[in-house]
Amino acid sequence: MAKTRIGIYGYGNLGRGVELACRQNEDLELTALFTRRDPASVQPLTAGVPVYAADDLAAHTGDVDVLVLCGGSARDLPEQTPACASLFNVVDSFDTHANIPAHFADVDVEAKAGGKVALISGGWDPGMFSLARLYATSILPEGHDYTFWGRGVSQGHSDAIRRIEGVADARQYTVPVPAALEAVRAGENPELTTRQKHTRECFVVAEEGADAAAIERAIVEMPNYFSDYDTTVTFVSQEELDRDHAGIPHGGSVIRSGVTGQDGENGHVVEYSLKLDSNPEFTGSVLAACARAVHRLSAEGQTGCKTLFDVPPAYLSPLSAEELRASML
Amino acid sequence: MAKTRIGIYGYGNLGRGVELACRQNEDLELTALFTRRDPASVQPLTAGVPVYAADDLAAHTGDVDVLVLCGGSARDLPEQTPACASLFNVVDSFDTHANIPAHFADVDVEAKAGGKVALISGGWDPGMFSLARLYATSILPEGHDYTFWGRGVSQGHSDAIRRIEGVADARQYTVPVPAALEAVRAGENPELTTRQKHTRECFVVAEEGADAAAIERAIVEMPNYFSDYDTTVTFVSQEELDRDHAGIPHGGSVIRSGVTGQDGENGHVVEYSLKLDSNPEFTGSVLAACARAVHRLSAEGQTGCKTLFDVPPAYLSPLSAEELRASML
Repeated sequence: MAKTRIGIYGYGNLGRGVELACRQNEDLELTALFTRRDPASVQPLTAGVPVYAADDLAAHTGDVDVLVLCGGSARDLPEQTPACASLFNVVDSFDTHANIPAHFADVDVEAKAGGKVALISGGWDPGMFSLARLYATSILPEGHDYTFWGRGVSQGHSDAIRRIEGVADARQYTVPVPAALEAVRAGENPELTTRQKHTRECFVVAEEGADAAAIERAIVEMPNYFSDYDTTVTFVSQEELDRDHAGIPHGGSVIRSGVTGQDGENGHVVEYSLKLDSNPEFTGSVLAACARAVHRLSAEGQTGCKTLFDVPPAYLSPLSAEELRASML
Repeated sequence: MAKTRIGIYGYGNLGRGVELACRQNEDLELTALFTRRDPASVQPLTAGVPVYAADDLAAHTGDVDVLVLCGGSARDLPEQTPACASLFNVVDSFDTHANIPAHFADVDVEAKAGGKVALISGGWDPGMFSLARLYATSILPEGHDYTFWGRGVSQGHSDAIRRIEGVADARQYTVPVPAALEAVRAGENPELTTRQKHTRECFVVAEEGADAAAIERAIVEMPNYFSDYDTTVTFVSQEELDRDHAGIPHGGSVIRSGVTGQDGENGHVVEYSLKLDSNPEFTGSVLAACARAVHRLSAEGQTGCKTLFDVPPAYLSPLSAEELRASML
């Protein structure tokens, strides 16, 4: 089979993650990068990949089999994915859970109009965690679901801290509460408040002369972001932040605890967990596998919007169905 | 949508597990039990379910939408699944990994000839563990796979002990070595021998006057089953065995440890784990979800042999695609 030609739209951390994933998969080939910056200012890691202005997307529909959209869910993807889905097979990582049905509808119309396949909300949550929830709930209809995130960096919470007056830089870690995790793993089905599930650790660089106490108060009392959590604030130097907190790790666990039997007498715990050194590289690797699947679905003549729920797992693998049955079943 | 009418062929622990799963799912209805015993001697847990002789299967093709085959992989399923697949949509839990390709081929011919859908090797290994391997390997092509089983009861090993002279009863637990599991979870990618991955714990009831030392030697030196493992033998009374070892728990973990980055500098660990109080009831619950999916695939006009690798995950759930996107993605 010919290689799947991948285009990347948006060359930040996630775009580079997709690019690196293409380099690990012989059946994927990065053939175009699209950017809203000056293309001459963008240097791909991969030699020889052409960089085009995002405004020229429509001129390059013949250059890629699947376009992977690597923008943000707040402002970029709600516009970009529908706009691109009538021109290209596309994959995105739209992760605003509450808005997924509306985004799906917007993308579905355009993909069907263009005769293309679009896969939205790839990645790990939504994505692999969603699959874990779906499989476990389908098997164990009587039970409880728990999702824990971390230990990992939340970019949104780090950004929120950086917007506080007197803050030069910051990094926020979301951390699951060990006792809560253990109770869930033991099948105890605890009722857990937001505060009981996760804590938040903040490493903050204060500007010279800033009021540290005021910064700390502004963080721990911030509604939505921090006020519902036990939050710790540690002030560090920029050098310490750069040295000790440069990575973008993340992860977490999806756990379903359910029962079977004549009277629910047998308990079962299903857990899917991730420990990721690099959130964007792992997410990019998921999107690359999704792109492979989208190419296959499109080659079969399918059109419209899909999610990982609709994709036969075998389509994500470069191996043939025969190879998979012989080696992984 | 009308309920999916389920038939069960073979009413042992697994058959009862499927029956119990049908009772937990409103869209599934058990409509027929088939047995090789005298039907009059079989009392289903569910009132009103007719019990038929296995010889009369062909007379009841109109009574069920999907027949779930609950026999053993050694002798029953290699015959039964192909024989039934031309008459019924079927699901089995064939678990002799090395023979899956041949079994698939046998079943595929018959299912296609009959215009039916057959799903083989449902359950958790093969089954959910296979899916965990496939997803993780598709995302992280550079890495290592590990499967640990237990702590859980191995029926095959328990049976092997019972065949030793002087043994009245026995129960064998497969137990992962904690240090090995921790090293894998830490992403250390250890090379592990069979002995380093699992230990075997045997609880044995000796017949009166039997030579305990000889029994212990026969167990720990038994080729294939025990000689490659560190095995402990504990003699107990029948009362103790019945009281403390009556359950059929099992479980385990599939772990993939892989790398991404420009030079493999970022490590990732993906783990799928199960802790099951009842192996047959959990397996039966997986087969029930597979039966739902098979009914849908058949309603779409598909035919032939499938595995969970071929099934869009959404097909396993009773919820609609819209409900799944809104609630689980």
